[in-house]
Amino acid sequence: MSNNKTSEQWMRGFPPPEDRIISVDKNNHYNWPELCWTFSNTQQLVPTKSIWRGPGAASKLEVQDAGIDKLTITDQEGKSLGWQEALKTIDTDGFAVLKRGVLVYENYQGYCGPHKTHLVMSCAKSFVGTLAELMIDEGTLDENALVPHYMPELTDTAWHDATVRQVMDMLIGMQFHEDYLDPGSDVWKYLRAGGMVAGRPEAGHPTHLAEYLMTVKKQGEHGKAFAYREPNINVLSFIIQRIANKDLQELVSERFWQHMGAEHDGWYMVDPAGMSTTAGCTLRDFLRFGELIRTGGKKRQAVSPAVTARLVKGGSRELFARAQYPKPYLQGWSYKSQWWIRHKEDGNAITARGAHGQLLYIDPGHELVIARFGSSGLPPGYLNDPVLLPMIDAVAAHLETY
Amino acid sequence: MSNNKTSEQWMRGFPPPEDRIISVDKNNHYNWPELCWTFSNTQQLVPTKSIWRGPGAASKLEVQDAGIDKLTITDQEGKSLGWQEALKTIDTDGFAVLKRGVLVYENYQGYCGPHKTHLVMSCAKSFVGTLAELMIDEGTLDENALVPHYMPELTDTAWHDATVRQVMDMLIGMQFHEDYLDPGSDVWKYLRAGGMVAGRPEAGHPTHLAEYLMTVKKQGEHGKAFAYREPNINVLSFIIQRIANKDLQELVSERFWQHMGAEHDGWYMVDPAGMSTTAGCTLRDFLRFGELIRTGGKKRQAVSPAVTARLVKGGSRELFARAQYPKPYLQGWSYKSQWWIRHKEDGNAITARGAHGQLLYIDPGHELVIARFGSSGLPPGYLNDPVLLPMIDAVAAHLETY
Repeated sequence: MSNNKTSEQWMRGFPPPEDRIISVDKNNHYNWPELCWTFSNTQQLVPTKSIWRGPGAASKLEVQDAGIDKLTITDQEGKSLGWQEALKTIDTDGFAVLKRGVLVYENYQGYCGPHKTHLVMSCAKSFVGTLAELMIDEGTLDENALVPHYMPELTDTAWHDATVRQVMDMLIGMQFHEDYLDPGSDVWKYLRAGGMVAGRPEAGHPTHLAEYLMTVKKQGEHGKAFAYREPNINVLSFIIQRIANKDLQELVSERFWQHMGAEHDGWYMVDPAGMSTTAGCTLRDFLRFGELIRTGGKKRQAVSPAVTARLVKGGSRELFARAQYPKPYLQGWSYKSQWWIRHKEDGNAITARGAHGQLLYIDPGHELVIARFGSSGLPPGYLNDPVLLPMIDAVAAHLETY
Repeated sequence: MSNNKTSEQWMRGFPPPEDRIISVDKNNHYNWPELCWTFSNTQQLVPTKSIWRGPGAASKLEVQDAGIDKLTITDQEGKSLGWQEALKTIDTDGFAVLKRGVLVYENYQGYCGPHKTHLVMSCAKSFVGTLAELMIDEGTLDENALVPHYMPELTDTAWHDATVRQVMDMLIGMQFHEDYLDPGSDVWKYLRAGGMVAGRPEAGHPTHLAEYLMTVKKQGEHGKAFAYREPNINVLSFIIQRIANKDLQELVSERFWQHMGAEHDGWYMVDPAGMSTTAGCTLRDFLRFGELIRTGGKKRQAVSPAVTARLVKGGSRELFARAQYPKPYLQGWSYKSQWWIRHKEDGNAITARGAHGQLLYIDPGHELVIARFGSSGLPPGYLNDPVLLPMIDAVAAHLETY
């Protein structure tokens, strides 16, 4: 897939030429390659809530060029790629690396840049999973409680006999037909209720996410297999927001953004009831969040070492394998508290993953944090792995003695 | 008008109760009193672009309580009001005062607060007018040029023989029927093109603001009378963006927000072509902007004293009077470069004014800056003046020897 996306000159000029306008009206914002512009300019297409970075100055990142641009990688099909070629092959918008907290690499493509926020897609689930782990650690959230303890309105749904832990680890048996090519599929009702796609719900269908959740029925058993289903993140989000009596954007600001010296406000998309859903931030702030998870925080401990240790340990690889991802994707991985865990012989990496190739990769053993934004035309993020993982491994090896 | 707006508990809870949800879907966001919530939470209803405050820490505001809460005022009908009563009578969301740069008063009501941004409505016009004055000062904008010099596509419109200065001072003769009660009125086509109200344009109507401008015809002569017509601000905005080749949010960030030590990012609403329209910010940052205009800037000069002096001098009171505002409103005022000038014997005040009672009041003679957010049920901002101006005058008098 070649990348001539910047040459398209979307949304340049005052106003842009008519055929270069990307808008919800035209419903072309999730087309490819238009989504390359959309992902770096999401706030101007959809309603959002700001994640305040606090009144202080941004934390300074020490910068050293570690020569990563000169690496050559061998992808999982055995093909040799120069670094720049590799970046473009998987439609990279941004790629940056912290080694021991030093910014040793930073690269932007397309419409992204150091002061541009980018949609992180499902990587935002890991914000919520971490908040839940912190609340468990502090004793305000009971992971063994059944969901209706916190959300009584879900008594007649898939979650009536599910524990919070099972929700956190995506071990819920539910009816949720996820076929993007079928307009009648559950996922479209879900996305429309969430305000995540253009077009409003049909009459009689759920008008926002909390209403949607009440329609989800159980299928099979809980706790038997990893099953990545979107609605679980909304259940978990409602639970922690109700316990804290604060919105996700406030929690992420107070617990993460204000501690890590963020340089820019992040933001949350919202559903039609004003509930925060997915998020966006700059690449550097994404790195800072990863570094906060890795180190626990510099000025004061914002993330307990026990939480980080629990995430790094990971989840059950046996339950994960039952999801049966096609080879070579995600083989031997696990899932814990809304993080994807890569089990490696030299120590596990915890990763936040999002559609179209968003990735936050934290490898404590290598004192390494890598953030990557993408706008791949292939929605499932793991389809980028045959190039992206070799890139990451090449960086880790290159920096081994750095 | 009594103010029980907070007791309504709009948008509280996860999710809020169905009949307490404010959304574009329900099209209740500009109802009164719902708009009290809307104005302090606008970003989560509409697309926006962030005005970055820069990487530094917020400037510290020295705080001293000057006892303004204890003032009693006499409104223009001769009625005596306690300060709190006065605030509520005109549906105040926020009111704050800087005397010589010291924060001597700060009060929030309803859904506003020190860390909440609020829609400033047409006060954002004064951002643009100031940018234009700066560009004239620096020689990059010719105020005597005709509009088509910068916007050739307006050759067949009202602006074909108008100067930039006439646009800046709202001295344009145009057909623009502004009757909010008439669904066929020009103002609704304008607002729909601008994405400023729910509902998209009918087929064949302009789909964004640049298209709308091309439909506006001349009526009468230019330069003969002040005529406050919305489309002028869009013409001026396009001109300065084209000259700078930067978006309004970038310009406001670079020239104002990054100089004044803003505490929060502000934001711009956008039209369906992505063009910035009106804006929002926190009350403290609104004050900081006023202080920047008053002083020119602390660290380095961001606003030339010549520009401030020109604004304070004001426009033609004779041309302004021809707009024939009903008594007692705006008598003896003038308009200059998208600022409203209050001519007073003890020195003029320059003011940014917006619908529903937004106000930024800069009185250099008194070393005074006052910012006020409101959500009055009466759209024309000047209808608040019979209470608001006596409040301001009471503050100025109280602080005379402070």
